Amino acid sequence: MEVRARAPGKIILTGEHAVVHGSTAVASSIDLYTYVYLHFSTPSDDGDLLKLQLKDTALEFSWPVSRIRAAFPESAALLTCTPTSCSVENAKTIAALVEELNIPEAKIGLAAGVSAFLWLYSSIQGFKPATVVVTSELPLGSGLGSSAAFCVALASALLACTDSVSLDLNHQGWRSFEEKDLELVNKWAFEGEKIIHGKPSGIDNTVSAYGNIISFKSGNLTRTKSSMTLKMLITNTKVGRNTKALVAGVGERMLRHPEIMAFVFSAVDSISKELTSVLKSPTPDELSVTEKEEKIEELMEMNQGLLQSMGVSHATIETVLRTTLKYKLASKLTGAGGGGCVLTLLPTLLSGTVVDKVVSELESSGFQCFIAGIGGGGVEINFGVTS
Amino acid sequence: MEVRARAPGKIILTGEHAVVHGSTAVASSIDLYTYVYLHFSTPSDDGDLLKLQLKDTALEFSWPVSRIRAAFPESAALLTCTPTSCSVENAKTIAALVEELNIPEAKIGLAAGVSAFLWLYSSIQGFKPATVVVTSELPLGSGLGSSAAFCVALASALLACTDSVSLDLNHQGWRSFEEKDLELVNKWAFEGEKIIHGKPSGIDNTVSAYGNIISFKSGNLTRTKSSMTLKMLITNTKVGRNTKALVAGVGERMLRHPEIMAFVFSAVDSISKELTSVLKSPTPDELSVTEKEEKIEELMEMNQGLLQSMGVSHATIETVLRTTLKYKLASKLTGAGGGGCVLTLLPTLLSGTVVDKVVSELESSGFQCFIAGIGGGGVEINFGVTS
Repeated sequence: MEVRARAPGKIILTGEHAVVHGSTAVASSIDLYTYVYLHFSTPSDDGDLLKLQLKDTALEFSWPVSRIRAAFPESAALLTCTPTSCSVENAKTIAALVEELNIPEAKIGLAAGVSAFLWLYSSIQGFKPATVVVTSELPLGSGLGSSAAFCVALASALLACTDSVSLDLNHQGWRSFEEKDLELVNKWAFEGEKIIHGKPSGIDNTVSAYGNIISFKSGNLTRTKSSMTLKMLITNTKVGRNTKALVAGVGERMLRHPEIMAFVFSAVDSISKELTSVLKSPTPDELSVTEKEEKIEELMEMNQGLLQSMGVSHATIETVLRTTLKYKLASKLTGAGGGGCVLTLLPTLLSGTVVDKVVSELESSGFQCFIAGIGGGGVEINFGVTS
Repeated sequence: MEVRARAPGKIILTGEHAVVHGSTAVASSIDLYTYVYLHFSTPSDDGDLLKLQLKDTALEFSWPVSRIRAAFPESAALLTCTPTSCSVENAKTIAALVEELNIPEAKIGLAAGVSAFLWLYSSIQGFKPATVVVTSELPLGSGLGSSAAFCVALASALLACTDSVSLDLNHQGWRSFEEKDLELVNKWAFEGEKIIHGKPSGIDNTVSAYGNIISFKSGNLTRTKSSMTLKMLITNTKVGRNTKALVAGVGERMLRHPEIMAFVFSAVDSISKELTSVLKSPTPDELSVTEKEEKIEELMEMNQGLLQSMGVSHATIETVLRTTLKYKLASKLTGAGGGGCVLTLLPTLLSGTVVDKVVSELESSGFQCFIAGIGGGGVEINFGVTS
């Protein structure tokens, strides 16, 4: 038996940082995916191994399933239907298993993902020999939700091969889960995210599982279906961010200037609300697509100014802004700032020639560009043989 | 009899644009001056002429005083003590006098200043033959209050030679007016400003007359004495601005996004209030000069972000911001934006070498740099022979 799962990445459209202080933020799926291919071994395959291949980083790990069984003696009873946090004891066991892999220093950032894999695999599938292959269109650690997409795709593939979800095995091609099964996928993915990030907000995995647009405020998530297709240029400045330090910096600024910052956060809250309302209003209504795009561009520009007033911009972000502004395109940083990624709306009527020019100019500055559709569906699986 | 007057320019420290929508703004004098030299002709001088020399533009105009007298028949009774607006009829007369000068097309922007000169001169001094020489350290039309400084210096020089103000003629060197005389100077300068600008706010001439820091909100001006010396780098992008269009643009954005913009304006209001409180708090108090400067830098950075969210920045402004940021200096646009001038705080402890580097880098981008002290005294006059 084999299955493929693909889970989308995410971007923060508006409200990053302000959300920490009670404002609404809006996140969206992007049609760049992480793919997980799961193939259970047959007796004819090479021994009783659990193999994990991370194609993008050319790393491959394998464990005899007996080794996994010995590590998790209490997992004989599968947890498939009851997403469970990795206990401190199990975390230690996993850490030991991962340490044995001798992951090269330059790729040690992947260790947390391997740990999440071991927890999800053993909890959902127990000790069956299998090969899991991971590929991704998402850059790692750039705020595009690559780890959540990995956890969602992995949980989906693992759950799809259990009786805990309802799937018509005769369906051809990519298909999504039923709502209740998506919930299970999302909960397991969140357990994986916790292993990778410690205290994730749960937004990334929720966007990756459900797709579309999600607004969130004070821990409450609201799913919204966008009535329009948006295309964004995502520019990865490739400058590593220290998210914790950036969040702390905004917090300190708030302590120094509580009144000013409260108004700044309120302005961001209003931007997120207005964005949601523009995105979900039916098209065509009184506003044409172009008018809506212009509204969204203005909201992005305003949010960017407010982020600058929080002190989280960066010289490379400003370079991207300047470059795109030359072509009259609106941009804003997305995520923590201080580097990371920048969003640029590509209006429907924008010519491909202009897009090519902007991209080539940004790439010549050393940045990495992606073009992505915004607000599409969430995770999907495919039992077909070809991907 | 001869007299010199010098009146300072102004900058907006915080609150431009937002002030139009009810927020507080803070303006300050800068120690860059417009000088007016007034010398009454004696019978031995060349005829009965009123001469105006604009040294910086190498323009010189003159009128036989008989021509002026014929133009303003009702001005036999001098208006010296009762600042009076130029009537529509007098404006027509002045327009005719100015048209006769055949000012070169490239310098036609000076016509309004010449008109103001004719109105102030004839109203305060009547028809005495004299030579008036104007020089200025302020760039024209760049938001540094050059026209107000001209009107204030001119009104001061003209009034200093009347009995309407109380001055000890034996005092040597530069000296200021008494409070009630400053009020008269300021009112006359405002009449000149009205001829030049139509509907000026009165802030520029008030800052130029009184100096120091002035905060203004909904038409109310509050004078504040700064307890600290601040030094600013003023970078003139030399990009001409269309102030009316920029103000209108912000107004339209407010109509499109009333809630967001109301928060943005409130944030700016809080910035202006906090700035005033930092500037007037005694030094040394609990905050050292360096701590105060850091606060001011943060307030400037936040205000700049908010101005960007109003949509009034400009590529050249961003270039200045980027350049100064490289040296960890905080900057913001000042005035209308869309070009114009950018302020950069030069902290007390900043080395001259760094200042030289920043200035030379900015100048090599084609900008014009000024270094100015902030918040010094207002207009002064000098009856000494040498300037």
